[in-house]
Amino acid sequence: MIESIQLDKSSSKHLYIQLYLQLRDLIEASKLKEHTKLPPIRKLSKSLGVNNVTIVNAYNLLEEENLVYKKVGSGTFVAAQNLVEDREDIYLDEEVYIDEDTKFIEEREEIEDVEKLINFATAAPTPDLFPITPFKRLLNKVLDRDRGYAFGYQKSQGYLPLRQSISEYIKRYNIESNIDEIQIVSGAQQGIDILAKTFLDYGDTVFVERPTYPGAISVFKSRRANIIDIPMKRDGIDIEVLEAELSKEKPKFLYLMPNYQNPTGYSYSQEKKERILELAKEHDLLIIEDDCLSDLNYGNSNNLSLKSLSDNGRVIYIKSFSKIFMPGLRLAFLIIPERYFNDILLSKYMSDIFTDGLVQRVLDLYFREEIWEDQISKLRQTYQKRYKAMINALHKYLPQRVKFTTPAGGLNLWLELPENISGKKLHQKALKLGINIAPGEVFYYSQKKENRVRLSIAAVTGEQIERGVKSLAKLIEDELDEESYHWDNSIMPLV
Amino acid sequence: MIESIQLDKSSSKHLYIQLYLQLRDLIEASKLKEHTKLPPIRKLSKSLGVNNVTIVNAYNLLEEENLVYKKVGSGTFVAAQNLVEDREDIYLDEEVYIDEDTKFIEEREEIEDVEKLINFATAAPTPDLFPITPFKRLLNKVLDRDRGYAFGYQKSQGYLPLRQSISEYIKRYNIESNIDEIQIVSGAQQGIDILAKTFLDYGDTVFVERPTYPGAISVFKSRRANIIDIPMKRDGIDIEVLEAELSKEKPKFLYLMPNYQNPTGYSYSQEKKERILELAKEHDLLIIEDDCLSDLNYGNSNNLSLKSLSDNGRVIYIKSFSKIFMPGLRLAFLIIPERYFNDILLSKYMSDIFTDGLVQRVLDLYFREEIWEDQISKLRQTYQKRYKAMINALHKYLPQRVKFTTPAGGLNLWLELPENISGKKLHQKALKLGINIAPGEVFYYSQKKENRVRLSIAAVTGEQIERGVKSLAKLIEDELDEESYHWDNSIMPLV
Repeated sequence: MIESIQLDKSSSKHLYIQLYLQLRDLIEASKLKEHTKLPPIRKLSKSLGVNNVTIVNAYNLLEEENLVYKKVGSGTFVAAQNLVEDREDIYLDEEVYIDEDTKFIEEREEIEDVEKLINFATAAPTPDLFPITPFKRLLNKVLDRDRGYAFGYQKSQGYLPLRQSISEYIKRYNIESNIDEIQIVSGAQQGIDILAKTFLDYGDTVFVERPTYPGAISVFKSRRANIIDIPMKRDGIDIEVLEAELSKEKPKFLYLMPNYQNPTGYSYSQEKKERILELAKEHDLLIIEDDCLSDLNYGNSNNLSLKSLSDNGRVIYIKSFSKIFMPGLRLAFLIIPERYFNDILLSKYMSDIFTDGLVQRVLDLYFREEIWEDQISKLRQTYQKRYKAMINALHKYLPQRVKFTTPAGGLNLWLELPENISGKKLHQKALKLGINIAPGEVFYYSQKKENRVRLSIAAVTGEQIERGVKSLAKLIEDELDEESYHWDNSIMPLV
Repeated sequence: MIESIQLDKSSSKHLYIQLYLQLRDLIEASKLKEHTKLPPIRKLSKSLGVNNVTIVNAYNLLEEENLVYKKVGSGTFVAAQNLVEDREDIYLDEEVYIDEDTKFIEEREEIEDVEKLINFATAAPTPDLFPITPFKRLLNKVLDRDRGYAFGYQKSQGYLPLRQSISEYIKRYNIESNIDEIQIVSGAQQGIDILAKTFLDYGDTVFVERPTYPGAISVFKSRRANIIDIPMKRDGIDIEVLEAELSKEKPKFLYLMPNYQNPTGYSYSQEKKERILELAKEHDLLIIEDDCLSDLNYGNSNNLSLKSLSDNGRVIYIKSFSKIFMPGLRLAFLIIPERYFNDILLSKYMSDIFTDGLVQRVLDLYFREEIWEDQISKLRQTYQKRYKAMINALHKYLPQRVKFTTPAGGLNLWLELPENISGKKLHQKALKLGINIAPGEVFYYSQKKENRVRLSIAAVTGEQIERGVKSLAKLIEDELDEESYHWDNSIMPLV
């Protein structure tokens, strides 16, 4: 059937679009049957006399439409109907610089000799964990109830009933908030962008943790801010360094993740949380507290937010639903002290006027029907199992010279490799074995540490964890051998 | 039944939440029947011993949940089920400064003696024009097809099949684009914000039209840009002034709306469009072309975009689906010359990482099933009728001293009142009669003209247009009388 394909190079239509359309027709007419293997890229490009990229683009389009699926190392196959759940996909991670992302995508082509990618690089949950059935029901309920109003203009501050639901929901986390203090935003990244627009001007100073979330660094840099990063210790930010920096300069705000920090997974001790708030009072500071994971605690650890302590109106709290619900919703909220209401509302307005009203309405019902608690508890159970499997595998396989802590919650583990072992190099080697990890250096603004990597448990099964960590450990050991070989070499040249 | 309500002032729950919850229970248990009038705000606040605001907030919450509806001048009533379409609402307009919005909302309380608000202030379509039935069907189709994948992470550039659909769709407007050039954004406002992030640094210069869209001005100001506004004439921007400004300074870009400009409704002549592109070539300029209304042409006018002419890669095109589809979707796209791909993608990433994948998938199917053409044609017919009604009413009722042009498409008409008549004052007086108009001065960055107003036809029926314009004309005549009275006074003081 493939023989019937003819591309017209004189047409104004791109060749890959022509190819995609013809293949789609063949598939939809069942002339290409389910699970039929499509010709390998090089073979088809040769026989059609076109570039490899033409074939890749056409296959990608078909894949995005779920008309074909790819098996890494085997090729591209015609999909069965509703094959969606079998589809393999690499999820891009919001915590990784876009340059890195682009690179990750390109490198995907190289993975040829493994059956399946093991993805430790993303902290985003996978579609099998999403509550699609209730969500679909509520979506239809909203459409029947509100019809066109769900698609009309919404208030920039957010849908009032949702703000009320959120105000109730966060009481469980000891946060008391007036609904006026709640601002809906289109994801935590937008929250950070809006706050940067509101508070940062050319040359203003901002303090962040080192390492930290690179999406925040990019935004602060874009506002031409002066960024000072302060080291993270296992019990939170280094207070001595912080005090020394505060004696030199007052920042517009501190951007902190006190619970299950990204990328380290470290949490601030209760003492440090209180100390930070004291310092805020002493120095008249504003703190932006980014809390996306505190729902995912696996023990009795202290995961109180700064906002829930007595913050004297010095904390702006950001909470995303990406990690604990579904990333595609693009929903997060801020809790804002009253004096900033108008400035932040204007920044929201400038950013995108308002957040999708349909999704806000569905999430509101989700809270009101109390399905929320079930979903969080399901996620927490799933992740706790994976977390335990991860800790076990790390202890079992990793060479002793690799250091890591065991945080009491969240999705990330932070490995400190022996010095001279590069996280980036490990990432590249692992990718060839079908294992994706996040090289640590992307999380540093200054004083990059080359020998760190972040492993996340959001998108891997227990079996993948076991297999993936085993392979990583082997790679690290090979690096260590090589290192000692070089070392031997260097002290024995005279022999 | 209302007598059963009891508020607990010692509770940690806000009083208005308590009131809202008790009223909701009464309504849901049918103890308050359909169309029952709720007590007037002042009466209830007095009998409960609370502030008026408490009642207003509780009623607003009920209204947002469609449990009650308001009749301006009559009060608040218990809603019937599925009463949504009867609901009155004031739509906030994306073209009006947020400060103005806030004021509009507050002023809403003052409207007591008219039956219904006539809203000439918004250029956003109303829910009765939304294609809810096909949209719901496609939404369910996407959920059945893609399930969780619709809610997972999406590519920052946008969903590939949608980019392909858009590339096909804009061929009708003589725009040829490669799908790589298309960047999905969360509404035109975000598009402007992303471009400002990409191109504007502290003190950079940008040229805009005078008057122009205030949402763009806010963004450019937030980037601390130096804004130069160049007057709009009836056939487009003033080329002489533009050339004079170009001889002094080269801007980072020009932000232009060549078809049915906001707020004036003016379109550039073909000659001016070509001249602008020549100037862009001569001076090596970048043009941002914001085109949200060119689909709504009511005649055979030239509504070609700059992008469709030979632009030599100097035009970035923004198109929103808010005005021609549904504002709540939060979807727009950019067409970008290749040299800016990476920078703009990074700015998108910093803004919100990616745009809601569910809505992108539904819109893609909407295009592929070719329902699009029907919807546009339905909108165009509806608006054309209103547009004719508007022109007729303006000619019929307005005093001759009010000047206006009749644009050949779009949603806005720009009235030039006699000097000394303030658009803002007219707005305030009109609002008391239940008529909302956009005072022209919010559209000026410099050299504000006080005597302009913008009337939009997006949210008014033919009958409302007739009645509204008649009342406006009367108000203007009263102002003129008052003016001549003052004038008489001033020349006859000696008598």
